[in-house]
Amino acid sequence: MEHQTEISQLGEFGLIDRLTKDLPKINSSTVKAVGDDAAVLSYPDSEVLVSSDMLIEGIHFDLTYMPLKHLGYKAAVVNFSDIYAMNGTPRQITVSLGVSARFTVEHLDALYSGIRLACEIYGVDLVGGDTTASRSGLVVSITCIGDAAKDAVVGRDGAKDTDLICVSGDLGSAYMGLQLLEREKVASAGQKDFIPKFEGKEYLVERQLKPEARKDIIAKLKEEDIKPTSMIDISDGLSSELLHICKSSHTGCRIYEDRIPIDYQTAVMAEELGMNLVTAALNGGEDYELLFTVPLHCHEKVEKMEGIKVIGHITKEDLGCAMITRDGTELPLKAQGFNHLS
Amino acid sequence: MEHQTEISQLGEFGLIDRLTKDLPKINSSTVKAVGDDAAVLSYPDSEVLVSSDMLIEGIHFDLTYMPLKHLGYKAAVVNFSDIYAMNGTPRQITVSLGVSARFTVEHLDALYSGIRLACEIYGVDLVGGDTTASRSGLVVSITCIGDAAKDAVVGRDGAKDTDLICVSGDLGSAYMGLQLLEREKVASAGQKDFIPKFEGKEYLVERQLKPEARKDIIAKLKEEDIKPTSMIDISDGLSSELLHICKSSHTGCRIYEDRIPIDYQTAVMAEELGMNLVTAALNGGEDYELLFTVPLHCHEKVEKMEGIKVIGHITKEDLGCAMITRDGTELPLKAQGFNHLS
Repeated sequence: MEHQTEISQLGEFGLIDRLTKDLPKINSSTVKAVGDDAAVLSYPDSEVLVSSDMLIEGIHFDLTYMPLKHLGYKAAVVNFSDIYAMNGTPRQITVSLGVSARFTVEHLDALYSGIRLACEIYGVDLVGGDTTASRSGLVVSITCIGDAAKDAVVGRDGAKDTDLICVSGDLGSAYMGLQLLEREKVASAGQKDFIPKFEGKEYLVERQLKPEARKDIIAKLKEEDIKPTSMIDISDGLSSELLHICKSSHTGCRIYEDRIPIDYQTAVMAEELGMNLVTAALNGGEDYELLFTVPLHCHEKVEKMEGIKVIGHITKEDLGCAMITRDGTELPLKAQGFNHLS
Repeated sequence: MEHQTEISQLGEFGLIDRLTKDLPKINSSTVKAVGDDAAVLSYPDSEVLVSSDMLIEGIHFDLTYMPLKHLGYKAAVVNFSDIYAMNGTPRQITVSLGVSARFTVEHLDALYSGIRLACEIYGVDLVGGDTTASRSGLVVSITCIGDAAKDAVVGRDGAKDTDLICVSGDLGSAYMGLQLLEREKVASAGQKDFIPKFEGKEYLVERQLKPEARKDIIAKLKEEDIKPTSMIDISDGLSSELLHICKSSHTGCRIYEDRIPIDYQTAVMAEELGMNLVTAALNGGEDYELLFTVPLHCHEKVEKMEGIKVIGHITKEDLGCAMITRDGTELPLKAQGFNHLS
């Protein structure tokens, strides 16, 4: 970046004006966006969905390898993912930022360009928020508002005995991307003109730095006239999310190790690092894939759908939650996951 | 506090369970609250309002004199205030927390007890959010969702030439409360058993530590069948907010120094500190009073309303924004306000 402007030169309102000028209004439910005490939304005949996520520098992201534009994109997308996971459509977001003195206006422009790009691609309106000072580092807190037709909302609590457990995409790749980025960060320490080694592992880096929400899967399910009985997005790892569904639905489950979808690059990276591949797929976070259950009679339909894999089935509650390993052993599922608080 | 529990003992989900258990559902628009990817709200025939605010330790609050329960109460109330300022009713909030290692579960219980109390008093449902680790200090980010009848929403942009400018309550007291608390903090440094001197200034302390949103004023205006032409809540100081209204409405304004409502304790404190009283009332932040404009024909009605003062009138844009001092001088209004970014 060439020219850097101190945030204090613009002041709070100048900064908000700059960050939010020329925002498009995509959704008819967006009556009034940035520029008042609150945004005004209008939803005549649907359910309104709300989701919030906070990302903190040093905890959720490392600006050494996370460009600010990517961070903005990711912060928006993870919130969209929460709304899709309810079988809804994200419509509006509010963005609250805490910004320490080392950030310039150009930094925030970069962050917002990522947020705007995500909004454009997913058809979401940026309608408000708050920008304030922070003592140390960057804090990004996003709330997303979405909607769903009456009775279309899918929660975590509707899974039934014999339902099939499905996941989209593949698991563990975002976690392996993080391991790779951390490794190259350590390797680069103190070296000038360091070139990180990402060849053959570009997919892992992309999964970590630029995740997507599975809008396409939601659309496909609608096309096929399948309404999942329960659904959740995988942000803390398959194991943790599946336990959420089973706890809320008062069921147990069985999943099969050999059915968990894992990308080739994830497997290679796990091998290189001497890490257990299945552990990474079960407990690595930030996949933002969809985990959902469908009634048994949907079996043929979901088996044919591209990008969806049936990995097991729901059981009665007293059978507990377990994975059947390749050698037939039952391993109880644990939520060791991706827990930023532990 | 006697028993202290490390947050890591509960983990993220245990903590959320604890913080959100037994939440009442006050509003029929709250279909589903905490415990899924997103809350589900339903608004059949009204406008939906959304407002977000972020409070950061060391910037917006000092835990030396701000008890956590008060902080929670205040963080919720300032968001409610934004929804009232649109002539709406707050219905739901989501709470995102960033928490550093020095905070225990009991600390968060105290914070949440204040949030819950505010929700109870104002009739708002807590429907979700996010709790995560932070590297330094506490971050509280709240988003409030509210509603208003169709065509009831009042923005900043509807003020017209000759409209009367009104404010609720009194101004500058929260700012003077902050000065008092800071003074006593400095005086107490290094002293054991220090007793701060708040006698005769309890109102100032309360205005800073436990502000209220003017739900009552919104109700009174409705009773009197007055719909303001524009409205805003005073969080950054009268001067700054009035400039917002005039800018959005393409108008100017004249307010009268001798009509600005100031409490006796505020005046005493300004005297003690050798500060300009009117500057404090114009630019001191966090009053959370309502500033609004009404058509001239409402003059008799608003003059009679308790807790509301007419302080001036709206003019054509080319006349600019100014205060008429006691000696008849015109002073241009400036937004030097309460700017956390400057």
